[in-house]
Amino acid sequence: MPFDLTPTNTIKPSYIREILMVTKQRHIISLAGGLPDQQLFPMAIIEQSLDIIKKKASLFQYGNTQGYRPLLEFLKQSYLKSYQDYDALVCTGSQQGLDLVVRAYIKPGDDIVIEAPSYLGALQIFEFAQANLHSIASNNDNELDLHALETTFQQNRIKFFYAVPDFNNPTGRCWSLHTRKKVADLCKQYQVYLIEDVPYRDLRFKGDALPLMSELHNQTITLRSFSKIAAPGIRLGCVFAQKNVIEALITIKQAADLHSNLPMQAALLEILTNPMFNSHLDEVRTHYKYKQEVMIKAINTHLNGLAQAQAVNGGMFIWLMLLNIKPHHVETFARSLLNKAVAVVPSNVFYPQNFPTEQQQSGLRLNFTHASPNDIEQAIKIIADELSTSQSGFKHK
Amino acid sequence: MPFDLTPTNTIKPSYIREILMVTKQRHIISLAGGLPDQQLFPMAIIEQSLDIIKKKASLFQYGNTQGYRPLLEFLKQSYLKSYQDYDALVCTGSQQGLDLVVRAYIKPGDDIVIEAPSYLGALQIFEFAQANLHSIASNNDNELDLHALETTFQQNRIKFFYAVPDFNNPTGRCWSLHTRKKVADLCKQYQVYLIEDVPYRDLRFKGDALPLMSELHNQTITLRSFSKIAAPGIRLGCVFAQKNVIEALITIKQAADLHSNLPMQAALLEILTNPMFNSHLDEVRTHYKYKQEVMIKAINTHLNGLAQAQAVNGGMFIWLMLLNIKPHHVETFARSLLNKAVAVVPSNVFYPQNFPTEQQQSGLRLNFTHASPNDIEQAIKIIADELSTSQSGFKHK
Repeated sequence: MPFDLTPTNTIKPSYIREILMVTKQRHIISLAGGLPDQQLFPMAIIEQSLDIIKKKASLFQYGNTQGYRPLLEFLKQSYLKSYQDYDALVCTGSQQGLDLVVRAYIKPGDDIVIEAPSYLGALQIFEFAQANLHSIASNNDNELDLHALETTFQQNRIKFFYAVPDFNNPTGRCWSLHTRKKVADLCKQYQVYLIEDVPYRDLRFKGDALPLMSELHNQTITLRSFSKIAAPGIRLGCVFAQKNVIEALITIKQAADLHSNLPMQAALLEILTNPMFNSHLDEVRTHYKYKQEVMIKAINTHLNGLAQAQAVNGGMFIWLMLLNIKPHHVETFARSLLNKAVAVVPSNVFYPQNFPTEQQQSGLRLNFTHASPNDIEQAIKIIADELSTSQSGFKHK
Repeated sequence: MPFDLTPTNTIKPSYIREILMVTKQRHIISLAGGLPDQQLFPMAIIEQSLDIIKKKASLFQYGNTQGYRPLLEFLKQSYLKSYQDYDALVCTGSQQGLDLVVRAYIKPGDDIVIEAPSYLGALQIFEFAQANLHSIASNNDNELDLHALETTFQQNRIKFFYAVPDFNNPTGRCWSLHTRKKVADLCKQYQVYLIEDVPYRDLRFKGDALPLMSELHNQTITLRSFSKIAAPGIRLGCVFAQKNVIEALITIKQAADLHSNLPMQAALLEILTNPMFNSHLDEVRTHYKYKQEVMIKAINTHLNGLAQAQAVNGGMFIWLMLLNIKPHHVETFARSLLNKAVAVVPSNVFYPQNFPTEQQQSGLRLNFTHASPNDIEQAIKIIADELSTSQSGFKHK
């Protein structure tokens, strides 16, 4: 009956959303969300920017779908100087950028390649679009398995390869230069369009930046976020792509929300061009570097023999591999941690629904940017206690 | 080939978008866009609200998908006091609200009823979703044709009826109480879910408010906009519906853009609760009433025998019926007006693609809120000149 409206297609309810609700309660140490450190928001710069825009009535009128012109010009100058035939689109967070790409180009049954584990928000979008997902799991060196990638490209007609090359969510892994070049070659050879999602790229606190995939392969759509370098609440991101792609996305965006918040776009331009912005970014990187070191040190101290993790050179996450817990027990274990007032995200939520549980890595995604150093150390101790207890528990089963 | 990305489905390029670009040039009087009068934006109130939010770092963090809690509470208190089992969702403009409803519930081929002519932004969304559109044209009294509505409900399994009951876009027409009651009865009888889009409801400058359709029919989704009463640039709207519907929309919104701009939601709450807000709204209504009177007077003075229009009690648009121009000539006529530096929107863009041109009304949508009274009068004179010229032109063809 029409009165019992049934959604056409479902999105798997987000365990992360569930966890974020729980962590609003007191006394929970959250390593779960991908939240930047609120104490590092550039409030003085934000305040200056709002003081400028609040006087300009024209910024509160309807705007262009593609974005606020001066912001677009700045973004193109900053990021597209050496690109030919590329254009930019401001979107309501880079999340919307990916959603627009999928709505513009993906039909049910289209073949898409993703890394596994992969960003949950991307999985939700691809699964809602009923794409046929091919997962590339890491190889034994915990690098993208280039052999598996080539086989998948060979055996299917792949439309897109979606990846987070810089400090992946959830694994924190950064593609090596070798991997980047090889992926670009394979995409060219098999005519695969690449979507590179780089929200964490500017959060590198160690080592030199590696080339963007768009520098190595023309047919790349780059999704950038301002959530990690300015503030997430303002919901602004940007898509860079070839002009014809941007034109297609603009048409969908017009139907989706007409345009993104105009005064906030103007404020973002003021933030990004503020003379203090670069030192703000340096401060963020320095703090995140320190917190990451605290987390890795705590893991090495307390989790020896129970779990292991690789240090990362940037981003927001550490991937904690659980040595003695089976993949189908990880979510139960994460829930038991919640009872001990520590929130983490279990590995299973980062795999698509068609990925066999027994082939998943057993892991926890640990965010090191949001909690305080003391809380990070405390949380790792609690994880250690719970791992010891759980393992004896599982042994009895 | 994958490198030649072809969009899965197209949205008819918006003539309105094209026109809005042209009107950015100088010396064009635009009656085309649905733009509020920028000079009436409550800038003092907006400034106060931004001064409050700029100090609160927590507003720049990630927020809840459903919306900023204090704003949601205010909206539910203001609009849902007497409703049972209803809930609210803040969205990135009411445009996104409609898009979310369609993504949640409409599959290709689903039967949807719309008024014809109808809001272009809604047509784009329905056609992108490949809905099967049934149009209800006005009857001879320029009222919704209730007989045609009942026949359509009888002969099809209609999922949604989408309507703009208060000051329709483009016609400016407001449903009478009789029409509202009868539509509610028919929706109940044939189990049709209603979507009422009410962005202009608070812009009534004459007569008493009539009941919302949601007061007469439980199964109604109400889309509200803050673009017309606060400012459109901030891209905030709200969906009110039964809890299960809101829950389905939240899931899609999470994938679409995570949540709407959080600091702007907090600013909107400050704006709506500012002691000066009601007198701001009164001022807007008074000005729009005056401008509408100027337009109607100019039409009666200059367009006698060429075109006719009914005065409206609110909203932003007058529907100018062209007496001697055939439907398939209206767009050409609108383009000829552009050459005379007057921008209007021709009737054809407000009909779905499956609506026969010869059955369309020949009309122009005239916006009376954006241009100055002098420009409104000047534009009507130019329309009169061009109508006289064109008609002799068409007679020769």
